[in-house]
Amino acid sequence: MARTVLTSPTKEVVIGFDQPFVMIGERINPTNRPKFSKELGAGNYWRVKKEAEAQIAAGAQVLDVNVGVPLTDEAKIMEEVITMLQTEVEAPLVIDSSVMAALESGIAAYKGRPLINSTTAEEEVMERILPLVAKYDCAVVAISNDDTGISEDPDVRFEVAKRIVNRASDYGIKREDIVVDPLVMPIGAVNSAGKDVFKLVGRLRHELGVNTTCGASNVAFGLPNRHAVHNAFLPMLQAAGMTSAILNVYDEGLVPAIKAGDMLAGNDPDCANWIARSRPKPVAGEGGRRGGGGRRGRRG
Amino acid sequence: MARTVLTSPTKEVVIGFDQPFVMIGERINPTNRPKFSKELGAGNYWRVKKEAEAQIAAGAQVLDVNVGVPLTDEAKIMEEVITMLQTEVEAPLVIDSSVMAALESGIAAYKGRPLINSTTAEEEVMERILPLVAKYDCAVVAISNDDTGISEDPDVRFEVAKRIVNRASDYGIKREDIVVDPLVMPIGAVNSAGKDVFKLVGRLRHELGVNTTCGASNVAFGLPNRHAVHNAFLPMLQAAGMTSAILNVYDEGLVPAIKAGDMLAGNDPDCANWIARSRPKPVAGEGGRRGGGGRRGRRG
Repeated sequence: MARTVLTSPTKEVVIGFDQPFVMIGERINPTNRPKFSKELGAGNYWRVKKEAEAQIAAGAQVLDVNVGVPLTDEAKIMEEVITMLQTEVEAPLVIDSSVMAALESGIAAYKGRPLINSTTAEEEVMERILPLVAKYDCAVVAISNDDTGISEDPDVRFEVAKRIVNRASDYGIKREDIVVDPLVMPIGAVNSAGKDVFKLVGRLRHELGVNTTCGASNVAFGLPNRHAVHNAFLPMLQAAGMTSAILNVYDEGLVPAIKAGDMLAGNDPDCANWIARSRPKPVAGEGGRRGGGGRRGRRG
Repeated sequence: MARTVLTSPTKEVVIGFDQPFVMIGERINPTNRPKFSKELGAGNYWRVKKEAEAQIAAGAQVLDVNVGVPLTDEAKIMEEVITMLQTEVEAPLVIDSSVMAALESGIAAYKGRPLINSTTAEEEVMERILPLVAKYDCAVVAISNDDTGISEDPDVRFEVAKRIVNRASDYGIKREDIVVDPLVMPIGAVNSAGKDVFKLVGRLRHELGVNTTCGASNVAFGLPNRHAVHNAFLPMLQAAGMTSAILNVYDEGLVPAIKAGDMLAGNDPDCANWIARSRPKPVAGEGGRRGGGGRRGRRG
């Protein structure tokens, strides 16, 4: 039973078959956000901090950190952002970049065990990423495409994922430290995208024995009422056996859907988390965020 | 591939593996509703009509009809209600009673092909219900419990369902006319209730080749925020392969969750139903329910 352990100096999060679904917040990402991009380029990280705190308050257990802005020193920004974030929040982080130097500087600066986002099965990518994952003893997202691109055939995508797992093993990386992204296609373009991924997730879990993740927002690309699609898709992924996803925890109804999904998938013993979530919220102004009257515990 | 065909004089609804999930409205039922019970006993059926129209407007394709009130002539009420409903609405009906005479009078009055709710694997029940289903060429809900009660073991519940299918075959009832209810336990009492039913639905579909249904509201019995549990549970059931359910279509968010589930399960070609649902609604007062300007087709 795969257990992918991510840590910060003060917190451990386990992605696993018998664990609550791990929600990885996607919002520390400047793509298509000109103000955010400009701030990052200027070394101004207030929005990173704000998004980190807000996502954790909304339910994210782990935060994806992508600071990719063209024509900036991404390695320097990543190092500074990782260092800053680890003084501000307890959640383990995902170091997300397509720039090798930024991954390296982020990993070197990170205290604990991060998730590296990502390798594919492309030869050149595996040769760069896997030694880094092995050297720092990290976990890694493995995206199931290779030098020939992304196959629409889920059985091919399974074989591609298997190839990454085998290659990683050559570097001494354990299967449990690989979180496979089976690739979710937009259902408006590929009509079988949903059932393809449900089937693939089941095979990855039962045959390959690995944890899984995905960028969940892709499925509804171009469709109306995207939130309602996400709110149905995530519980379906949980029923299929997926164990984590990179998503927008601000989406209305999404976090409750996933928490109900945990309970229905059998990963909330005695429905304890569900029942705890439904207790009345503290009244605003009655106490500080980390202090207060001391009558209430931290909400899970 | 099982196709359970239900009809009224003007409408056909197919429950099937490649069909949109069939939502059976549960609201024509006087249980725990003293006013409704009193009205039914007095032969006043205005609320039946109201609930029928409102459920269809909310998205129900089929309506469950239960008129069980103690110390009344249920057979007479069922006959009158079925006859009245078939003049008012087009949706096929489910004739739902634990009183044999009420099932018989309802079936005899019904024009078309109803779904009979229900038989179990109890010997005495099968001997009464199955000949009736065969005689009138109906479809039937088969609940997977027997003379020993309801097993908590999903593999036992599978065997019980199989026994009903085999016995029905002796009466000439086809497998495709049996819709198995695998029985959903309250997850607050049986912590594995969700994953048990997902597994069982998969077996019923792939091994036994039958359609499935359930009383979906049972799962969250006793829990807080039941709507959010239902809204996650139904898409998970769809991912597992369930093809219909008896449910409350008034639940906020439930119908969109199921329609998204259809699309994600691959049963909404070109996402056409999803996109059609999201078009702006007609302005109130602009036209009558069945007439109006004639510019708009009936919504599916």
